[in-house]
Amino acid sequence: MAETIERKELEDLQEDLQEVQELLRRQRLVESLVHRTEGPRHELEESLVHRQHQAELRRKLDAMHPADIAYILEALPIEDRLAVWSLVKSDRDGEILLEVSEPVRESLIRDMDQHELVAAAEALDADELADLAPDLPEEVLDDVFRALPVEEREQLRAAMSYPEDSVGALMDFDVVSVREDVTLEVVARYLRRFDELPDHTDQLFVVDRDEQLKGTLPLAKLVVSEPERIVAAVMDDARVALYPDDKAEDAAKAFERYDLVSAPVVNEKGKLLGRVTVDAVLDYVREKSESELLGIGGLREVEDVFAPVWESVKNRWSWLAINLVTAFIASRVIGAFEGSIEKLVALAALMPIVAGIGGNSGNQTLTMIVRALALGQIQPDQARALYRKELAVAIVNGLVWGGILGVLAWWLYDNVALGVVMTAAMTLNLMLAAVLGVAIPVIRTRLGHDPAVGSSVMITAVTDSGGFFIFLALATVFLL
Amino acid sequence: MAETIERKELEDLQEDLQEVQELLRRQRLVESLVHRTEGPRHELEESLVHRQHQAELRRKLDAMHPADIAYILEALPIEDRLAVWSLVKSDRDGEILLEVSEPVRESLIRDMDQHELVAAAEALDADELADLAPDLPEEVLDDVFRALPVEEREQLRAAMSYPEDSVGALMDFDVVSVREDVTLEVVARYLRRFDELPDHTDQLFVVDRDEQLKGTLPLAKLVVSEPERIVAAVMDDARVALYPDDKAEDAAKAFERYDLVSAPVVNEKGKLLGRVTVDAVLDYVREKSESELLGIGGLREVEDVFAPVWESVKNRWSWLAINLVTAFIASRVIGAFEGSIEKLVALAALMPIVAGIGGNSGNQTLTMIVRALALGQIQPDQARALYRKELAVAIVNGLVWGGILGVLAWWLYDNVALGVVMTAAMTLNLMLAAVLGVAIPVIRTRLGHDPAVGSSVMITAVTDSGGFFIFLALATVFLL
Repeated sequence: MAETIERKELEDLQEDLQEVQELLRRQRLVESLVHRTEGPRHELEESLVHRQHQAELRRKLDAMHPADIAYILEALPIEDRLAVWSLVKSDRDGEILLEVSEPVRESLIRDMDQHELVAAAEALDADELADLAPDLPEEVLDDVFRALPVEEREQLRAAMSYPEDSVGALMDFDVVSVREDVTLEVVARYLRRFDELPDHTDQLFVVDRDEQLKGTLPLAKLVVSEPERIVAAVMDDARVALYPDDKAEDAAKAFERYDLVSAPVVNEKGKLLGRVTVDAVLDYVREKSESELLGIGGLREVEDVFAPVWESVKNRWSWLAINLVTAFIASRVIGAFEGSIEKLVALAALMPIVAGIGGNSGNQTLTMIVRALALGQIQPDQARALYRKELAVAIVNGLVWGGILGVLAWWLYDNVALGVVMTAAMTLNLMLAAVLGVAIPVIRTRLGHDPAVGSSVMITAVTDSGGFFIFLALATVFLL
Repeated sequence: MAETIERKELEDLQEDLQEVQELLRRQRLVESLVHRTEGPRHELEESLVHRQHQAELRRKLDAMHPADIAYILEALPIEDRLAVWSLVKSDRDGEILLEVSEPVRESLIRDMDQHELVAAAEALDADELADLAPDLPEEVLDDVFRALPVEEREQLRAAMSYPEDSVGALMDFDVVSVREDVTLEVVARYLRRFDELPDHTDQLFVVDRDEQLKGTLPLAKLVVSEPERIVAAVMDDARVALYPDDKAEDAAKAFERYDLVSAPVVNEKGKLLGRVTVDAVLDYVREKSESELLGIGGLREVEDVFAPVWESVKNRWSWLAINLVTAFIASRVIGAFEGSIEKLVALAALMPIVAGIGGNSGNQTLTMIVRALALGQIQPDQARALYRKELAVAIVNGLVWGGILGVLAWWLYDNVALGVVMTAAMTLNLMLAAVLGVAIPVIRTRLGHDPAVGSSVMITAVTDSGGFFIFLALATVFLL
């Protein structure tokens, strides 16, 4: 019967959230009543109700997945968030801190004392602890470090030493390894001694006595093979093995390309260090794409929707400052032509069109080139073909759209020459945008920068100032 | 010994590509020689060399993973791409067509005749075929359809009936299912009858005789449990089961949240239809984030870097047209104040700053709200708190940055009143941007639209025209 399955509705989470909010609301109501009536008998009664609410809330939270609690915490305003947080069982604190976004994590950690933080941290694996470490106060980290067994302490030290966007940062140490000269029967007996295998164990790692990786034994292969066969005869060679200092992005591409669930990580000598699993990759891909979107939107980092005004101002400050500078430069370019504008005021109305369309067109080229660079589709010797193609697109667009605008300008201001200057300026600015749309990301990549970050600001700055300059200069020369 | 492991270097692909390009280059050289000398003896000799090159290239391609061949095809200009494509073994065509991006797929399919296309399609599973189907000519699809066995025909029909962004579109039919009343020993014997399990089989699905899903049996649990135990006693209840018409995005979130490798898909009656695996989810997340980036950059779809100029123009056309319209409206707003600009030409130089910073600030708010909406963090009753917060941020930024600009304007044009108008206009436009940054995505979500698409254009259009209007109107009223 279908009824026996407790299907986890995807919409359930929204309901969970509403229930929590309702409980919090009722609790606040009770608190305000206690506050108003003050009498000790009332206090007692009300606090009984209060405690019932708390117990209900706690029961609800205990039954939830850490990721779901994280979701609820993120969706609550600060005060409610801390009320819920205080009800979460302390041995789950660590897992939940790992799931929430950076600013929410900071708000939760600020609310915990050293003792709670140490307890939360100690419940985690070394690789998880390494992810949390940058947000923990130093005293907490010292305490945790001292309490760790030697092996885990080494793992933590290793995990913390890898840069953020490296395979090492994605790696965990939950590997199950076997020898190549035993039978599958022996492997099966060995596995039965586990209560459970680490999450995402889709394959066992085959190593020799020096922990050198010899191959991998997928569970799916183990279960379809005859028990008397030898591991070495059944195992796959480890086609994809990662180094801890490989780029995380490259590892993600390998997971996508070869549809992996886990991949071994080895050092230069081929010794098995750990593994990367697809859940870490999926989180990485999502975070990466999110931070790209934030970068384009002009936010420094993920913003807690309920952050205090001051936090938000700080998060958006640097980007606005940059834009202010580029806008001011563009304004000075216009300032240099004030004489011309005084003589022909139509220029003031038309110039933002030239600048704006240039920026849009440049960003189109940029987006395409950045994508192709990220996928490694552009070879150095193809740059010239790209310039040629983008210039051709720019000329077509410039003549067509610029032509339409030229006709509009002519019609509006009854001035043929103004229309011609408009068309010419549009075409020239689109050509400038095309060259920059290829040049900026290509050159930045060659200099070792990430072309996705900041290139859009640069191109818009140049096509703004450049568009104003081209249009006003052409007008000054040919119309006045 | 480490040497025994054939580690797949992530950089290898770049080398593969260069090798292929070198072979193609040499081949073209030979062709041009044949062409020039014409003589039949030469032709024979040269074509021998030619055939050697081809054989080498073919050998190289045969040894490559389909995803890697797809990468090479994408990175080659059209002519080379088709030369390589003709050398790929025809039974691999289908897999490779699935891996390449849409426009490249079209260029390859255009080069194939009906016979080749039918052969390529027939090598695929029903769910893969459904992904490819929209790009195939109808005759090909008819042929393939007729050749399919009944069961697969049904699966194909089902797979093609689901909308693009649904769980059904991600689903495959490669499920291995077992009964709940048998022992693990029996399951193990059953599995050994397979040559191999479908990719990403991390769990078996437990069904009754009506194919109702009763639970799941993870392989990791199977291998650690004693063989004499009964499936029902060991299995998990299927906590996450998806419906084919759930949104793919929600399924992706479930995979991320609960770190899944596969999840069963059931119909309303609980009957097992298929499964979704993490590789499909990873591809979906990557494609989704890519199409968001393309949308922001103003491209209609992924563009083949080597597409003809005309294809590129078409891909960018619609976006430029929209921007042209909004830019033209902004231009007419300025046009309405030409009299004021004539009297005080400084207005022309300062007005783009007000408009530009408004757009940037609005996009910051928008980005944050869109993200929070996507994560389900904003409840309807919280909208008012968000408006209040964003307005506060706008006022702080307006007074600070607007103040700085006001002082600059005062200093440049020696006009205190102009500076005050500048500061006031900046603050008002930032407030307009803040309100729109919350309102546009919230309202569009309520109307059932995706707030990520097009909201940025809308907000920029309003803050441009609005910024010009606010600044020029204030100036006209207070300065002239």
